[in-house]
Amino acid sequence: MGRQYAVIGTGAIGGFYGACLQKAGLDVHFLLRRDYDYVKEHGLAISSTFGDFTLPQVNAYNQVENMPPCDVVLIALKTTQNHLLPHLLPPLLKPGTVVITLQNGLGVEPEIATIVGETAQVLGGLCFVCSNKIGLGQIHHLDYGQIQLGAYGNNHQPQGITPTMRQIAADFEQANIPIQLAENLLLARWKKLVWNIPYNGLSVVLDATTDAMMKDSYGYQLSEQLMREVIAGAAGYGLEIKESFIQKMLDYTMKMKPYRTSMKIDYDCHRPLEVEAMFGNPMRAAQAVGVAVPQITMLYQQLKFLDARNIAIGN
Amino acid sequence: MGRQYAVIGTGAIGGFYGACLQKAGLDVHFLLRRDYDYVKEHGLAISSTFGDFTLPQVNAYNQVENMPPCDVVLIALKTTQNHLLPHLLPPLLKPGTVVITLQNGLGVEPEIATIVGETAQVLGGLCFVCSNKIGLGQIHHLDYGQIQLGAYGNNHQPQGITPTMRQIAADFEQANIPIQLAENLLLARWKKLVWNIPYNGLSVVLDATTDAMMKDSYGYQLSEQLMREVIAGAAGYGLEIKESFIQKMLDYTMKMKPYRTSMKIDYDCHRPLEVEAMFGNPMRAAQAVGVAVPQITMLYQQLKFLDARNIAIGN
Repeated sequence: MGRQYAVIGTGAIGGFYGACLQKAGLDVHFLLRRDYDYVKEHGLAISSTFGDFTLPQVNAYNQVENMPPCDVVLIALKTTQNHLLPHLLPPLLKPGTVVITLQNGLGVEPEIATIVGETAQVLGGLCFVCSNKIGLGQIHHLDYGQIQLGAYGNNHQPQGITPTMRQIAADFEQANIPIQLAENLLLARWKKLVWNIPYNGLSVVLDATTDAMMKDSYGYQLSEQLMREVIAGAAGYGLEIKESFIQKMLDYTMKMKPYRTSMKIDYDCHRPLEVEAMFGNPMRAAQAVGVAVPQITMLYQQLKFLDARNIAIGN
Repeated sequence: MGRQYAVIGTGAIGGFYGACLQKAGLDVHFLLRRDYDYVKEHGLAISSTFGDFTLPQVNAYNQVENMPPCDVVLIALKTTQNHLLPHLLPPLLKPGTVVITLQNGLGVEPEIATIVGETAQVLGGLCFVCSNKIGLGQIHHLDYGQIQLGAYGNNHQPQGITPTMRQIAADFEQANIPIQLAENLLLARWKKLVWNIPYNGLSVVLDATTDAMMKDSYGYQLSEQLMREVIAGAAGYGLEIKESFIQKMLDYTMKMKPYRTSMKIDYDCHRPLEVEAMFGNPMRAAQAVGVAVPQITMLYQQLKFLDARNIAIGN
């Protein structure tokens, strides 16, 4: 039997990728909360552009203490739940464990590295996937699916392509999950923010899908300017993202099917938004090296305002 | 009989001040559109913190061609209707006519000066008033009421206190309307924007009343930063607004009764927003003298996006 996987947070992302891995024959252990009773009895059901499938039986847990230490731990919680990690991670670790965060934003790997210390290697997995949880144990994978994998080193020193990355990639490829290896994790993270910051942020503030933003000239300008600030932030860390990448992202979004971003879905469901990981951390990172990001700052503050009220309404 | 007044746009502002002037014995002529039939028959009804009153009979018109040329023309249309002014103003002018725009934002006086040419003097009247039209010919004046009057000179050269300003002020004081005379109209306009830009803009984007913005720390920061950009814009024209004015406006707004801004009321009623006069013109003015106003720019673009969709929904 191959590597043993733990999935922390069996939702749209963790549920989808974990199920793909189990289907490919790997030994996967799922930590659940609200869906625990249902999934323990009925397993997981995936409807996917890669092909629908069900897993009538999965290793389901509602207590991390009952799970075995694993070779690989996939973190797929929302970053708003990261205060739970110091409790959730240690029981899953053994010497050589690889912890992969599939989370959005910036600054999650150093946080995890602090928790796991020398015991485990930390990788970042950037998910380019449209996937939603549509019911108990039911996940709908709509589009894309690629994971970009990069290794975290102290202070985000680029690690290149490591043997561990190649091993993990082999498992994911076996599960038909498209994998790309990134030599520089921090660069990959900033590049992903070029898309995430404008579209996730504006989708909430403007109550709009991607197509509505792109076909309005002001929505288009807003997106473009925000992308420019993200690139400036990255440049503050010596990370070059070419100017042409902006046009590429704008064109790509123009051609996308109308899309409601994950942050907008969270907002509409009155769930806490990942404002700190996706906006606050990049904003503070840019400011820390003297790069002015006034429009990211404004978007951050608008989202903080809306998020606080939205959660209050939801409860 | 005293000076003859024309009121273009008999709504919350024009209806209120025009009615006060008529009540004080002045000869006032009101141009109306939707309310014409009703007001011609029933006159105007004002409920006001200054005292309620009705004017069972007013000089009502639905065609500017039927109105007499007047000594004073009060423009109280929304600035979104200013494309009508080249048609509406000329029939009301005679040598020496004084045209006073009671409109919001920046750049309205030069526009009017171009239309009236040498025939008329142009004044700006900045209204500090909470007033709503609540029904046909019915105006509810909730709070405040002061008008700040300043004379427009070519390229906004400060005109000081002119004899015309004093004459108009005398009429308004006779009507119990508090009047303040401004030596520098452009400075007065920028100072008013210090309040108008953050609160009108954010009230729409964040769907919030003033109190909600002020009691949230991010709403407070957003307001403060935007005020700072307005002050920088003014400074680009050699107009000094003291740093302490920001704190004064924040404190003032903190103490205000919860208030839904006029732009938010327009938005909620699916009426066109005065985005160009209140945001676009100051933004372009600042940019023209090399002052960066990235957050005003972003707010402008957000409002343009929201306004376009909001009007489309309303129709």
